[in-house]
Amino acid sequence: MRSITVDLGERSYPILIGSGLLQGIGERCREAGLPLRSPLLVVSDSEVAPRYLGVVEASLRGQGYTVASHVIPSGEASKSLAVYEEVITTAIQAGLDRSSAVLALGGGVVGDLAGYVAATYMRGIGFVQIPTTILAHDSSVGGKVAVNHPLAKNMIGAFYQPSMVLYDLDTLRTLPPREVSSGLAEVVKHGLILDKEFAYWCREHASELLALDAEALGYALERGCAIKARVVGTDERENGLRAILNLGHTIGHAIEAVGGYGVFLHGEAISIGMAGSALLAAKLGRDHSIYEDTVSMLSALSLPVRLPAAYSEDELMEAMMHDKKFKEGKMTFIVPDSIGAVSIVNDVQQSDVREVIAQLKKEGSPW
Amino acid sequence: MRSITVDLGERSYPILIGSGLLQGIGERCREAGLPLRSPLLVVSDSEVAPRYLGVVEASLRGQGYTVASHVIPSGEASKSLAVYEEVITTAIQAGLDRSSAVLALGGGVVGDLAGYVAATYMRGIGFVQIPTTILAHDSSVGGKVAVNHPLAKNMIGAFYQPSMVLYDLDTLRTLPPREVSSGLAEVVKHGLILDKEFAYWCREHASELLALDAEALGYALERGCAIKARVVGTDERENGLRAILNLGHTIGHAIEAVGGYGVFLHGEAISIGMAGSALLAAKLGRDHSIYEDTVSMLSALSLPVRLPAAYSEDELMEAMMHDKKFKEGKMTFIVPDSIGAVSIVNDVQQSDVREVIAQLKKEGSPW
Repeated sequence: MRSITVDLGERSYPILIGSGLLQGIGERCREAGLPLRSPLLVVSDSEVAPRYLGVVEASLRGQGYTVASHVIPSGEASKSLAVYEEVITTAIQAGLDRSSAVLALGGGVVGDLAGYVAATYMRGIGFVQIPTTILAHDSSVGGKVAVNHPLAKNMIGAFYQPSMVLYDLDTLRTLPPREVSSGLAEVVKHGLILDKEFAYWCREHASELLALDAEALGYALERGCAIKARVVGTDERENGLRAILNLGHTIGHAIEAVGGYGVFLHGEAISIGMAGSALLAAKLGRDHSIYEDTVSMLSALSLPVRLPAAYSEDELMEAMMHDKKFKEGKMTFIVPDSIGAVSIVNDVQQSDVREVIAQLKKEGSPW
Repeated sequence: MRSITVDLGERSYPILIGSGLLQGIGERCREAGLPLRSPLLVVSDSEVAPRYLGVVEASLRGQGYTVASHVIPSGEASKSLAVYEEVITTAIQAGLDRSSAVLALGGGVVGDLAGYVAATYMRGIGFVQIPTTILAHDSSVGGKVAVNHPLAKNMIGAFYQPSMVLYDLDTLRTLPPREVSSGLAEVVKHGLILDKEFAYWCREHASELLALDAEALGYALERGCAIKARVVGTDERENGLRAILNLGHTIGHAIEAVGGYGVFLHGEAISIGMAGSALLAAKLGRDHSIYEDTVSMLSALSLPVRLPAAYSEDELMEAMMHDKKFKEGKMTFIVPDSIGAVSIVNDVQQSDVREVIAQLKKEGSPW
C-alpha cells in the first residue's frame, strides 16, 4: 500500500492507495476515531453503488456502525442544490449527529456533492473520500467541495478537508476506456505544472496506464496525488500558488458549459483546455515546442486536443467571463513556461483568448 | 463609539457600536481593504430595506463601489435553501467575484442567510454584518451562519467569521416593543451564563433598556457582545465551551419548531427555554432560587416564562430529538449552577425534560 500525507497542520490527512482497501474501510474508520454510536452516511451513484456499496456497508456494519446510504443518479446533473437537499434530508432522517461522517463512494461528482453535504450539515461533520475513478485522484485531494448553479459550475461550495482518502485500485478495473483517459488528463496535468520528469514518464508509459497496469497506475496516482498535496499544503484556500492546478480549466469549463455537461468528459475538456493554454503560451512568446510536447502527451493518452467546429467562440467567451477565476474582472490564465513549469498570468487579452479558440477549432477532429 | 475585538488569530475582527455608523459604512469598507473593482451585494429584508438600504447604498457608492442589493421577505421563512439560491443568483448576475463581499443589513435571519451566501459563494467571499435588531447582537458575532431545513432549524450552515460588525444604535429606535424584549433575552442570557453582576444589572435597568435609553443599551450591547466574543474566541467551532451559549435554546428551538416560526419571537422562545433550564437545574439538585431569580429577570424585561397549554409534550420531545445538540444520541442541556454560571450536562434523562415541560405549562399564561 502506498501512503501520502496532505500536510495542513491540524487538518492533515492521509491518502492511502492500494488494492483491497474497500474491505477494510470499517476498520479504518474505527482507527480514525469515528464513534460507533453516530450513524454514517455513504453517498454513491447509480453506476458505482451496484458494484461496491454492498462491500463498503458490510465492512462498516462488521465493525458495529449504523450505516445509511443515499444513491444519486450518475452524472454531473446530480451536482445540484436540489440533489444536495435530498441528501441532507436522508442525513437528518438517518439521525446523523455532529460526530457522524459522510463517506463519498464514487467519482468527482459524488465526492464534490457528498463533501459539500459534510461541510454544511450541522455546520460540518466528518468526511471520508473513497474515489472510484482516476479523475477523482484530483478532486478527492485538497478539500474543494461544491455543487453547480444553473449559471456556473462549482459556484456554491466550501474548502473542507476530508479526514482520509482511501483509494482502492480494484475499483478502477471496471472503468470504460474514455473514463480512463479522462482521468489520466488530470494525472499528466500534475506533471505539466510542476514535474517535467513525471510528465514525460506519463507519455512513455501511456500504453501501460491505458491498460490499467497496477504498478504503473499506482505509481502515477501516488505521484499525481503527491504533487496535488504539495500545492494544497502550501495554499489551502487558493490565495496564490493553488491556482496553477487550474491549468486548462478555464477553457475546459467553458467547453463543458457550452457543450452541455457530458458531451466531453471532464478530463477531455481539460485536455483541450491544456492544448489551448499551450497555444496561448506560444502567443505570449513561449517556445512553440511546449504546444507540440503537450499535444503529444495528451494524444498518447487518447485525449482530444482540438475543438469541434460547432462550438461558438462568443458562447465560449461568455462562459469564461462567468468563470470564478476572473478576479476583479481581469482574465487570468495558467500559462506553461516549459513542460513542468507554469505562470499565473493576470492580464490576458480577450482577443488572444479568441484567437486561441479559433486555432483550437482549425485543426480538424478533436482526437 | 464603543469597540470590541473578537480574537480569533488571523480571523479576528472588530465590533463597532455607536450612532450614525450606517452613513460611514463606505469608508469602513475602504479601510477594511475591500477593492473598489469588485461589486458588493447588500442583503436586506422587506422591513429594514425601506428604512436603511438607501443610506447604506449611498455611502458605498459615494466611495466608488458598485453595489447590488437583494431584498428578502421579512421573517424566518426566508432562511430557506430556495431563498438562498435566489440570493446566489443575484450575486452571479451582479458579477460578484472572489474579492467581493456580502453585507448583511438586518436582523438574525438576514445575517444568517447572507452569511451562508458569503461562506459558500465561490467557496467563500467577504462578509460584513450590519445588525439592525438587538437580537442580532448575538447572531452577528461568532460566525455561525445557516439556513433551515424543513425538518430542523439551522441544519445547513457553516462557521464563517465576518470581517467586521457595524452596530448602528440608531437602527434600533424603530423596533416594536416585543422585538426589543426578544433581543434583550439574548443580552441577559450572556449575563446568566458567565456574568452574575451583568445579569442583575439587566434586571435593575430593565425599564431603561425597554425604553431604548442609548447609554444603557450601548453598555448592554457592548457587555453582551464582549461575553459572546470571549466564548467564541476560546472555542470557535463549538467543540466545548461554546455550547454554553445555547442556554435555553434546546427547549426554545423546539417551541419554535412545534408552534411554527413566528408564534413566539426567537428571544421569547429562548426566554421560556431559560426558565425551563432553571427548572431542570432545580430537578438536578441546584438551588430553587436560580429559577426564581431567572424568572424575575426575564419578567422584568417583559419576556414570557411559561408555555401555553396547547403545546404537546410529545411534539416538543420529538422536535428536541432532532436538535443538533444531541451528540451521539444523548440529551445535552446547559444547566445553571447559579446566576452567572452554567454546566454542560450530557446525560439528562428524557423523563426529567418531560416533567420540566409539564411544569412550564402548569402555571398559566406565558407572560
